[in-house]
Amino acid sequence: MAPQYKLTYFDVTGVAEACRYLFNYGGIEFEDVRIKSENWPQLKDKTPFGVLPILEHNGKVVGQSLAINRYLAKKVKLAGNNDWENLEIDAMVDTISDLRPKLLPIVKEQDESKKKAAIETVKKDTFDVYLPRLEAAVQKNNGYLVLGRLTWADFYFATISPAYDLTIREDVLAKYPNLKALREKVNALPAIKKWLEVRPKSTF
Amino acid sequence: MAPQYKLTYFDVTGVAEACRYLFNYGGIEFEDVRIKSENWPQLKDKTPFGVLPILEHNGKVVGQSLAINRYLAKKVKLAGNNDWENLEIDAMVDTISDLRPKLLPIVKEQDESKKKAAIETVKKDTFDVYLPRLEAAVQKNNGYLVLGRLTWADFYFATISPAYDLTIREDVLAKYPNLKALREKVNALPAIKKWLEVRPKSTF
Repeated sequence: MAPQYKLTYFDVTGVAEACRYLFNYGGIEFEDVRIKSENWPQLKDKTPFGVLPILEHNGKVVGQSLAINRYLAKKVKLAGNNDWENLEIDAMVDTISDLRPKLLPIVKEQDESKKKAAIETVKKDTFDVYLPRLEAAVQKNNGYLVLGRLTWADFYFATISPAYDLTIREDVLAKYPNLKALREKVNALPAIKKWLEVRPKSTF
Repeated sequence: MAPQYKLTYFDVTGVAEACRYLFNYGGIEFEDVRIKSENWPQLKDKTPFGVLPILEHNGKVVGQSLAINRYLAKKVKLAGNNDWENLEIDAMVDTISDLRPKLLPIVKEQDESKKKAAIETVKKDTFDVYLPRLEAAVQKNNGYLVLGRLTWADFYFATISPAYDLTIREDVLAKYPNLKALREKVNALPAIKKWLEVRPKSTF
């Protein structure tokens, strides 16, 4: 039988990697479609809002990686057990998600010395604000970001945070042993470890 | 009895107004705390991640407006009836949310002629892409954004979209009668109509 889920994204980890982790963690078969940049212009107008990832299931198609993650997390029992627990997870995920656009000034800057200055600004104004608080959260939550147990917020952090290093050009989590240990713990889960061995090699 | 929920935000509608709509719609009492800009620096470091809104309930505090909306929507029966329906709502909300940061180049630009150019760019690259698709969604969904019925996605759109006009300096929905009717329909709900009459006068 063909997989019931088809996930379409670019050939990178990016914001879709947490979806792929969730599929693998739950043993849910999925079609892992990866669009090459040169083929994107033709496909773009056929997607609901001109962005990826999209998930296809039962003849329906939806976008938005965090929405898809939340849906999959319920299927694989990495969501909250009640509305308040889900609120705590969602708030953590959106907090981590808020960090991403703050890296854009670095990515967009072409001039090397201005790029270096942008990196310093992001380190000071963003990472020095967010990471100590996330580190404290993991310390308080039994080695996880929220609820004292593994949730999809941990998958999101584990898959998104490697891009920080690439952007900032250093091991961003070096000063944050709890966050680093969390990422390693997620990546050591048997189903995830196996996925990391077989997944296509790609950049972030 | 004191309200069980305390919502803290600035004295504007902004991203917290959908939360206020949901409280009112469901007849849930809440403390509507509005921080004046001059008092924000003292409070900032006492919030979980230095941002507002925050929701306090049962001695706990969480941030992130969309997470709070989703939680409240479940309480007041404006969420989906199953996981897939919630995915459809979440994807719509995140799509509308994606639009907001695209307005920032306009807001940040001080030079009037450059600001006008930025407005034209956003109209062409963002509104002309998103709004026809949202309009088609409402047309297809019985006058609502998703699921053919009122959901918290409609509240989110109704509360966020007035800021578009302010930023773009025109009636952005003029060309989109279904979206305009949706906003008016939400604002005409008895509990919302009453809220609009009594809420503090504030800018977006």
